[in-house]
This record gives sequence, C-alpha cells and structure tokens, in this order.
Amino acid sequence: MTTPLFGTLCLVGIGLINSSIARAARKHGLAGRIITIDASEQACATALELGVVDLAGTDAALAADADLVIVGTPVGAMASVGAAIGPHLKAGAIVSDVGSVKSAVVRDLLPHLPQGVHFVPGHPIAGTEHSGPTAGFAELFEGRWCILTPLPGTDQQAIDKVTALWQAMGSMIEIMDPQHHDKVLAVTSHLPHLIAYTIVGTANDMEGHLQQEVIKFSASGFRDFTRIAASDPVMWRDIFMTNKEAVLEIIQRFTEDLTALQRAIRWGEAETLEKRFTETRAIRRAIIDAKQA
Amino acid sequence: MTTPLFGTLCLVGIGLINSSIARAARKHGLAGRIITIDASEQACATALELGVVDLAGTDAALAADADLVIVGTPVGAMASVGAAIGPHLKAGAIVSDVGSVKSAVVRDLLPHLPQGVHFVPGHPIAGTEHSGPTAGFAELFEGRWCILTPLPGTDQQAIDKVTALWQAMGSMIEIMDPQHHDKVLAVTSHLPHLIAYTIVGTANDMEGHLQQEVIKFSASGFRDFTRIAASDPVMWRDIFMTNKEAVLEIIQRFTEDLTALQRAIRWGEAETLEKRFTETRAIRRAIIDAKQA
Repeated sequence: MTTPLFGTLCLVGIGLINSSIARAARKHGLAGRIITIDASEQACATALELGVVDLAGTDAALAADADLVIVGTPVGAMASVGAAIGPHLKAGAIVSDVGSVKSAVVRDLLPHLPQGVHFVPGHPIAGTEHSGPTAGFAELFEGRWCILTPLPGTDQQAIDKVTALWQAMGSMIEIMDPQHHDKVLAVTSHLPHLIAYTIVGTANDMEGHLQQEVIKFSASGFRDFTRIAASDPVMWRDIFMTNKEAVLEIIQRFTEDLTALQRAIRWGEAETLEKRFTETRAIRRAIIDAKQA
Repeated sequence: MTTPLFGTLCLVGIGLINSSIARAARKHGLAGRIITIDASEQACATALELGVVDLAGTDAALAADADLVIVGTPVGAMASVGAAIGPHLKAGAIVSDVGSVKSAVVRDLLPHLPQGVHFVPGHPIAGTEHSGPTAGFAELFEGRWCILTPLPGTDQQAIDKVTALWQAMGSMIEIMDPQHHDKVLAVTSHLPHLIAYTIVGTANDMEGHLQQEVIKFSASGFRDFTRIAASDPVMWRDIFMTNKEAVLEIIQRFTEDLTALQRAIRWGEAETLEKRFTETRAIRRAIIDAKQA
C-alpha cells in the first residue's frame, strides 16, 4: 500500500467542486483522512451521510490538522475564511482554493496565512449547473484542465504536491499568473455566464402567454442558455464583484460585435452575416480537436 | 398492411431536417415513395447512397407526382423553389415547409402555388448543429413540438394530414399565425443563435495566444455557445434577413438588460446581480418540467 499524497485533506465549503474532490481523493487514495469545514450544519450532515468525508463541522479549528486545505466557497467569502482558519494552520501546511477568480483570492486570502504556510491558488475548469454536496462526482475533473496561479517565490514542493493531486484526479495542469487567468476566464466563462443570465432574464420578462411559449419551444436554442443560467447565484454574484475590470472590458467588446451584427441585420447585409457565421465554425472544430467539447 | 398517409412524398432540399423526415417516414411507413429534389448533385447522390429516398434529382419536374411536398431549403430560397416547382404540382397536392421563419415563407412561396394546391407551412422545433443529409436521424422529432401556421381558409383535410404526419413521427402539434410564430422564435431561437455567433466571434478576434487559451479552457461555459454557433451559416443568414423586425426588437430588449447588468457590475450592486441570477433558475426548472430540457 502506497502512502497517500496528504495525511489530512481539509475541504472548506462542501459544494459541487469540493465534494467532487472528496470523492476523487477517496477513489484514488490521495488522502489519509478527509474533513470538511462548512458554515452550514445541513451541508456537514449531508456530507457525512453521503460518506464523502470522515469528519465535518462548522468550527474553523478543524483546520489545525490539515496538510492541505482547499477553500471551495464563493470567492466573496475568501477573506473571512482566511481570517477564520489562518490562526489554526500548522507550519508546512499548503492552502489552495478552487475559486473562479484568482487576483481577488490572492488579495483576500493570502494576508491571513501565517509564515510557513504555502499558498497555491487553483481553479479546475470543470463544473455543472448543479450545486451542493450531493451534486459532486469523482470523475468531474477527468480530462479537464486545472489552472494553478502560484506567486513567484512559492515553495516548489508545495506546487508539485498540488499538481500531483490534480493529476491523480485526472486533470492536466497549466500554470499562469493570477491576472492573466482572470482575463482568460472573463472570456471563456464569465462573459458566457453573464450573457446566459441576461438572455434568460430577457425571456423571463416577456408578457405572460409569450413566456409560456418560450418554455414550450425552448428546444430551438434557448434551452442551452438556461442550463448555464441555472448556476449558483451567489457564486456568480461574487465572480462579477471580484473580476470587475476584466469582465467590463470583454462586455464592451461583445457589445460592439453585437451592434455590428445588429446593424448588418437592419441594413440587410447578408454577406457580413454569412462571413461571420462561417468563421465561428472553425472554433467549434478546434474545441472538438482539443477534446474539450 | 395499412395504406400510407401519402402516396409520393417529395422533399425539396435534403439537409438535416428533410433527411430526418425521410428516415422517419420510412421507419413508420408514412409514404409509398420518397423522392428528393436538391440543387446539389452531390446531395442527391448521398441521399441515394444512404438509402433514405427512392429517387433523387435536380429537376423540379420531379414534383409532379407529389401528394405532399416539404420544402427544406434555407428560407431565402423559398421564392425560387416556389417558381421552380409551382408549375409542376398536381391539383390536390399539399405543400409544406420546415423553415424557421414563417411570414416570409408565406410571402415568398404561396404566390407560386397554383389553384387547388394546399399550403400548410410548418416548423419542427428540433435540430442539431450538424447539417447535410448524413446528419439526419429518424428520432429527431420525437417528443418535440412542430408548429403549423396555415392561413385562414386553408383546407382542413390538408392541415389534418400534415398534422398526422408529424404526430406519426413523434411530434406534438401547435397551430399559430405566422407573425406570432416569428415573434416567439425570435426569442427562443433567433436571438440565442445571434448571441452565440457574436460571443464566439468576439473570442475568435482575440489576440493569438489568448485565442488558443480560449479553446483550451472552453469547458468553463464558452463551449456551450460554440455548439450553437456551429450551425449552418447560410440557413442562419437567411433567418436574420427574413425575420428582421422581430429580431431587431428582441436584440434591443436584450441590450437594455445586458447594459443594466453591466452597470450593476461597474457600481458593485451585488444584490441586483444575485436577484437576477436567482430569477433565471425558475425558467430552467419549468423547461425540465415541460420535458424540453
């Protein structure tokens, strides 16, 4: 029997992502013991019932034994989580997270970590529209990328251990700086979610009978947006609050592009539309080729 | 052995939808003979190779034997299709179509149909991002709605026969007027596609290395849009050219809603965002309940 990568793995917040980590860590024998700290007693009870953790509680002092802490709360809660667990962490412990924004996490969480604790921020590019501990599954990260954004000077062994964890759960690793991460994700994730929330909201505001018809005939395109727009509202509120600049810049670009197509429709510029609609097919093919479809 | 609904079924244009109709009609024994007229000799050859039709050719005179003609070309081609097949149609024949816009089809196709030919425009709310005769499958319409938009005074027997065809292929039927159809579909289908084309285009215009990263990390939301944005460019060009007014109106509403969220992000109005993101979950649930997810 091989020694697990980590003695005690402590998951702060036991939602979709962290409960999937718990399942994958159990499945692949990556931690000697898995514990969770969650502000919700209900979530703790559910995690224990599901058998995905060995110990669960609301007390931040549970982090004292942790060799690796992974914070999986909405990014707006990072500062308070840091303040709560920071004083309990042992020297040599590694702290990571799974937040969708990285600059703000570095800003909010790092100042609370004591000397001798290593910080390796992370973001698995995986998820579903479901949330909570029951929504997780061990295979969520297989074949998906996980981005790590350690600051310069971070202990290489800590980075290597976090890398090894994600690879053991089936992920590929990419290292980048937090600001670049936030710019890339503003395009690939934050804008698409904002657009989906917007379009579903626009339909939701339709007059009564038309709204019923929108639901009835949603298979014509609309329903694909409703899946994304069913994602956790608090998590997404926090993402837009903490990645404001990058998101506002990409909204601006999007709006310019939409206005150009709107104008082409108004003036009957068929060629402009056909050209634009043809270009976008190439990206779909590239995503299929990259096995991320 | 029961008599098929139609003696000769003639499919004009043998793409995703019409080749799926061919397969479903064959599977359920709905037509004595299935023929296709397609401007592309290649498509005709493929349809024959696939065995989904009994006869295929580029000559509009093939429509002479048809008891039911279904036009499945891009909506911009309806006028020329009508001019080509109109003179050949026999008295009592029914003409239908599967176009995504209905007012323009009534405007462009109907004037070419001789006295004694019945016109029952239709639109199956089903599809995939793939196109061409190889992309079709017999089950495409099962559990999906098909909207029929006959004009007042249309022969009821003709409407009933087209209804029976769609029901036999597994669809539910909804009758509405063409203008109302175009308004509903502008919301459920045309706007979502335009938005998807726009956002994929915005990403496509990113600087070189960023574009590669967009593809790599597309699983975070973006890839769902690329599927829709891989739909047939000519078909979608024609939809926006022929449903201009309804589309421009809904773009305007969408832009107002996006601007409101953009402003909430800029000014840090967390509550506005959370409220909006919570409302949209209800629509997803309604679509799941309506079995259209």
